[in-house]
Amino acid sequence: MYERSWTVRFSDTDPFGIAHYPRIVDALHETSDMFMQEIGFPFWEISREEGYGLPLVEMNFEFENPVAAGDDVTVELTPVPGTRSVRFEYVARNDGEVAFWGYEQRVCARTDGEGAIELPDDLRLALEEYVED
Amino acid sequence: MYERSWTVRFSDTDPFGIAHYPRIVDALHETSDMFMQEIGFPFWEISREEGYGLPLVEMNFEFENPVAAGDDVTVELTPVPGTRSVRFEYVARNDGEVAFWGYEQRVCARTDGEGAIELPDDLRLALEEYVED
Amino acid sequence: MYERSWTVRFSDTDPFGIAHYPRIVDALHETSDMFMQEIGFPFWEISREEGYGLPLVEMNFEFENPVAAGDDVTVELTPVPGTRSVRFEYVARNDGEVAFWGYEQRVCARTDGEGAIELPDDLRLALEEYVED
Amino acid sequence: MYERSWTVRFSDTDPFGIAHYPRIVDALHETSDMFMQEIGFPFWEISREEGYGLPLVEMNFEFENPVAAGDDVTVELTPVPGTRSVRFEYVARNDGEVAFWGYEQRVCARTDGEGAIELPDDLRLALEEYVED
Repeated sequence: MYERSWTVRFSDTDPFGIAHYPRIVDALHETSDMFMQEIGFPFWEISREEGYGLPLVEMNFEFENPVAAGDDVTVELTPVPGTRSVRFEYVARNDGEVAFWGYEQRVCARTDGEGAIELPDDLRLALEEYVED
Repeated sequence: MYERSWTVRFSDTDPFGIAHYPRIVDALHETSDMFMQEIGFPFWEISREEGYGLPLVEMNFEFENPVAAGDDVTVELTPVPGTRSVRFEYVARNDGEVAFWGYEQRVCARTDGEGAIELPDDLRLALEEYVED
Repeated sequence: MYERSWTVRFSDTDPFGIAHYPRIVDALHETSDMFMQEIGFPFWEISREEGYGLPLVEMNFEFENPVAAGDDVTVELTPVPGTRSVRFEYVARNDGEVAFWGYEQRVCARTDGEGAIELPDDLRLALEEYVED
Repeated sequence: MYERSWTVRFSDTDPFGIAHYPRIVDALHETSDMFMQEIGFPFWEISREEGYGLPLVEMNFEFENPVAAGDDVTVELTPVPGTRSVRFEYVARNDGEVAFWGYEQRVCARTDGEGAIELPDDLRLALEEYVED
């Protein structure tokens, strides 16, 4: 599993001092980008150099507790590789308590639009190192 | 049902010319805000003047087809009121074809954090005018 | 001069109920995009079909009065075409009072990175229809 | 002077693979927020506990070179305290080359809207440790 810390900023917050939902979604997407860089397959590189990507086909999130400016939110990402897709499962905790959690379902697809392909072996191996036992 | 048109902007698009997912989520949230204004219960007014809001507890979206800069995307919102909550169901179409769809589950809650309350009668009446038969 | 109305949304606002600066900048950029579409030279079309764009080289804005959720802000854009560049001048008013104003300096450049070029004649003509006398 | 690294993400980039301007502005504002936290006066704390803030009254930036996904951009912030205001000067470098630079002019103001006040002594002292000689 991969983990990063997201500090909620003043500019993320609403009239009640808690983060706007679109800003939480920004942080989730940033986490997917940081994870892909961490495992050596940054989104910008695979699309340009390998000709494929992992476009989103579904997102499903639950928001259990609000987060406020200054909170250091721990966002965990666990990949669940399929044959032609991968699910990124997220759990975000604030002071040990779950704040939001859910998943992004991503399909492996050629950037030229020819439809889904199998996850390349090297990407699969890299993802598997972060799979939960 | 409520309907608005969202024009995808150049600044919403990625290296393949299609909208980034966080920008789609921005458009969805903007739609909820426009809808609440349309029915006479803008988010900024109910929170300040009536002391309650409709915070998000779940979002679930599927992305079927990408949208590109210049596309005029029709976003439909249909409310499904519950007792202490309301579901906003969305369908977005581009040239008649579904681009993305899903829902936001929102709970009715006091802004002072005292937990869920029943939907106020006047809000329920306003929502019901947009319910699908 | 070109004019559009920007409604400040709940999700644009901060703990004091006023718009975050980055959200104001989003609205300004959206206005430039709407203007270029209005005059028949949308950013997404000129870059793809004509091989040039109007990248930003400078932005300078002053914020005189805050804007709040629900405010209908009138944003005016006046283009000032140069030889190889164009300045977009903005004035945003809220209830008749100036809220923010400033300009974006944009250069006309080939998208293949070969440096500044003269504004194409057809674009210049289209811009001149919006020039203030 | 304060320094942070900003990694440009895939979701920040446009059809030419370079960062959209509004995403650069997001990164600049995030830097101001990180700086205030670093010096012990986070925006969310001074507004809530001390009753003042540093609202933006002017921003002026020049964009010299585009930045692309994966670039690690070094953003430097140097505060220039005035009597009732402070200027945040920024220089962002990518591989040693200036990418963008400029400043935000911020005024010190009561959150209850009573107009500009002198910078509190403790804040001034904290800012002065980052002033360039």
